[in-house]
Amino acid sequence: MRGAKSGTTGGRSSTSTSPPIATRNWSLLLTEGPPDPPSRLSKNDTVVVELKNSLLTENVAIHWHGIRQIGTPWFDGTEGVTQCPILPGDTFVYKFVVDRPGTYLYHAHYGMQREAGLYGLIRVALPPGVSEPFQYNYDRSIILNDWYHNSTYEQATGLSSIPFDWVGEPQSLLIHGKGSFDCSTPGIQSGLCNATNPECSPYVLTVVPGKTYRLRIASLTALSALSFQIEGHNMTVVETDGHYVEPFVVKNLFIYSGETYSVLITADQDSSRNYWAVTNVVSRNSTTPNGLAIFNYYPNHPKRSPPTVPPAGPVWNDVDSRINGHVRWSVNNVSFNLPHTPYLIALKHKLGHVFDQTPPPDGYDFVNYDISIQQPNVNATFSNSIYRLAFNSTVDIILQNANTMNPNNSETHPWHLHGHDFWVMGHGEGKFDMYSDPHKYNLVDPIMKNTVAVQPYGWTAMRFRADNPGVWAFHCHIESHFYMGMGVVFEEGIDKVGELPTSIMGCGDTRGGTFHKP
Amino acid sequence: MRGAKSGTTGGRSSTSTSPPIATRNWSLLLTEGPPDPPSRLSKNDTVVVELKNSLLTENVAIHWHGIRQIGTPWFDGTEGVTQCPILPGDTFVYKFVVDRPGTYLYHAHYGMQREAGLYGLIRVALPPGVSEPFQYNYDRSIILNDWYHNSTYEQATGLSSIPFDWVGEPQSLLIHGKGSFDCSTPGIQSGLCNATNPECSPYVLTVVPGKTYRLRIASLTALSALSFQIEGHNMTVVETDGHYVEPFVVKNLFIYSGETYSVLITADQDSSRNYWAVTNVVSRNSTTPNGLAIFNYYPNHPKRSPPTVPPAGPVWNDVDSRINGHVRWSVNNVSFNLPHTPYLIALKHKLGHVFDQTPPPDGYDFVNYDISIQQPNVNATFSNSIYRLAFNSTVDIILQNANTMNPNNSETHPWHLHGHDFWVMGHGEGKFDMYSDPHKYNLVDPIMKNTVAVQPYGWTAMRFRADNPGVWAFHCHIESHFYMGMGVVFEEGIDKVGELPTSIMGCGDTRGGTFHKP
Repeated sequence: MRGAKSGTTGGRSSTSTSPPIATRNWSLLLTEGPPDPPSRLSKNDTVVVELKNSLLTENVAIHWHGIRQIGTPWFDGTEGVTQCPILPGDTFVYKFVVDRPGTYLYHAHYGMQREAGLYGLIRVALPPGVSEPFQYNYDRSIILNDWYHNSTYEQATGLSSIPFDWVGEPQSLLIHGKGSFDCSTPGIQSGLCNATNPECSPYVLTVVPGKTYRLRIASLTALSALSFQIEGHNMTVVETDGHYVEPFVVKNLFIYSGETYSVLITADQDSSRNYWAVTNVVSRNSTTPNGLAIFNYYPNHPKRSPPTVPPAGPVWNDVDSRINGHVRWSVNNVSFNLPHTPYLIALKHKLGHVFDQTPPPDGYDFVNYDISIQQPNVNATFSNSIYRLAFNSTVDIILQNANTMNPNNSETHPWHLHGHDFWVMGHGEGKFDMYSDPHKYNLVDPIMKNTVAVQPYGWTAMRFRADNPGVWAFHCHIESHFYMGMGVVFEEGIDKVGELPTSIMGCGDTRGGTFHKP
Repeated sequence: MRGAKSGTTGGRSSTSTSPPIATRNWSLLLTEGPPDPPSRLSKNDTVVVELKNSLLTENVAIHWHGIRQIGTPWFDGTEGVTQCPILPGDTFVYKFVVDRPGTYLYHAHYGMQREAGLYGLIRVALPPGVSEPFQYNYDRSIILNDWYHNSTYEQATGLSSIPFDWVGEPQSLLIHGKGSFDCSTPGIQSGLCNATNPECSPYVLTVVPGKTYRLRIASLTALSALSFQIEGHNMTVVETDGHYVEPFVVKNLFIYSGETYSVLITADQDSSRNYWAVTNVVSRNSTTPNGLAIFNYYPNHPKRSPPTVPPAGPVWNDVDSRINGHVRWSVNNVSFNLPHTPYLIALKHKLGHVFDQTPPPDGYDFVNYDISIQQPNVNATFSNSIYRLAFNSTVDIILQNANTMNPNNSETHPWHLHGHDFWVMGHGEGKFDMYSDPHKYNLVDPIMKNTVAVQPYGWTAMRFRADNPGVWAFHCHIESHFYMGMGVVFEEGIDKVGELPTSIMGCGDTRGGTFHKP
């Protein structure tokens, strides 16, 4: 996995005319333990990442999305939860085991920095000699994303402002870092848009006729729920978030931010032409144009446009709060704030003053709360309190999505759990009925994931075992939603966590290497 | 000086339609030692500043501009030189003595953060019972500034990019945080510009007819050299940078970034009308419109426009390098970089590997260097090396301003020295002659300052005593120029510096409270 930056990183370029964002001098070196460097990681490899922050004034932390960090909760890379931010000029070493084959991600987990472009894909192979339960000739990866022209700094400012300034819809969708933008839009400097610029051409995925491809598809959108399709080709879904699934065929893959899928695609169509790969926004009335790439049959010229109009893609169609004038998302009327001393350190070293020790509410007013109407949320509060789970207990979570504070509005939220996978026990429309709905749970072969969406006005039930000592974030993977408080934190088995590395310290009450108590 | 944020801080608002910049949740509390809180500071007061960084992802450091920090070099507030950055959520306590009456400033000294709006003015009065050597009825302050519509993040990115993207001219000039902008400019959302919005009205300085005002005027421009005048009124300059001057009368005050002046103005004109206060860019061909405020004679309505056209203001009209494709400023062909472990800590704790131990050059090729022609600067380099001064020695510096890498271009640079004041021994046009020019020095009554400009193609000679144990920055006060390497650092008497507070540590080789050596 050396050279992962150029190899598997999504990167970000676009034909857009967006203003430049902060230069990303990431000196990210991904090296792995024995055996001698394979071209990709294998199960049970130890990964050592030496991250040098060469930015001039910006801190960083990197989360290894989908890696459970068993025995190394301090290297989950979640600023405020498991570590202090990494200062400019500092080098931080992450070291962890990839204990399961599959498709994972890494991305910044500090402020809204992920959206600014620090992310990539991690492929973990089976050990040598072991075969996947499906066949393919080649293994390819793409990351889907959305792209704003204004900076994440401006977005963060708007989200924190009174009056609230929402980030709006993204200007483009990107397929593996490339997208397009209509440069004839008024106010856009046309000089930045040049069709002859190679950076302005769509991403090309070249295939050999007759061959079958494992295409690993990940979404790291800031906001958008996506559909993805390849014109004229079906896709067989075989893996998601590192778990095999009973194969099923789709024409359109719906994918939410933080999810990964492996699909099998056979290049079995007319090989004399190219085809469009298309991604489009679903689940909200978006103004964002579809993203396009070229599915190129070798030996056609990779830039030859398909002769067809790109398929349009299908369209189908929680609760936000206002606290002291700030618009916020909340869970059970509590909007989450990170403390300045990471939870993992505060809990392990018993710095009880760091965060509110009263647990957040376990539920809401199931009897009287009408999820279908606009909410006043007069009782919403900020809190940095956490849920403390009994070690090895089985935890059920029902995510219930209500109308927001805007009339006739409820939104899709992909929720991501750190440190675990969970079974998706069921999902449904409307208000969860705690008496009848659990009887509909899939107790036979529920899918296992680390990210799952809850649909507008719907519910999603999940279950996991609290068996990984540490402190773990669970949050909506939409960048602005987490920034606006849509998340919680779980503690489990803190007494079983080993000695913390000092490298994760240096902020809040661990500044200067000592543990400050009031 | 409690409540200084609202009282003496320049703040930033503008009638401009600029995009929002990062919210500045500065919880800056300025409290002072005995005697019980006066409305302003007095000579020899101890100032305790509890700075809580409530930004979500941005570090900070604050410099007390003009305060020499005798005995407290660790509280100079210069990130990378005297302290580590203050992390989000952290509280940092500055504690120092204001040992001399006069007019000073405070501002961020981290990245280009000052330009983003963190600054204010500090007034230090004489001790009770002692009188100034000039008379006035009231004491007023204004800060002049310039204002860009794009963020400092975008600017920093552009300055670091290849190809280089210069910040350009500011969109407005501000008088005490207020300016104006022509909202009919194409591409500007006119909704943001509203003449009835009280924030869109110019700053008003109300005066009582017949009274004399001490007006403290400071400039903290990012780029612009300014002239300031009050229509129909003369100003008598009596103080600059904390030093009295032989009073002299001006119609226009030329003021450079980092300078402070006290002028006396008597409200002795026709009191039936108001007058314009005007600031305009000098010393470069600027497109920036003049800044306007209203000099309001009580009891005229403060918003009544003066009946006249605002006076236009006078107009009159170093070396930059290219290193590995980056455009940089340099001193003696060396472009300055900050290390990640602050110099003060590295020197005191003998962490010699932190920065280049070879001193930078003491001069340039005096014989062959033609200051009047475009420079190739093929030998320019980056360095973080410093000048180590013999303690108590007398140091002469001649700033020689050459043609830049652009043809027929040399620019004004205001240089600011930390930890000291200096005598301005002389200045002149053209190339400094080391044999004849020193004979023209003013050895009788040279002015003493902490900031002085060097004019295009000109030289400025200054002298100071290296008698303040510590490590001190000396740099161009133009935000983008310092960011681009236009500065040096002096060490003097490091062995006489007392034990460093641990609060300044936490970054680079002082992370985790220990001193890392290779």
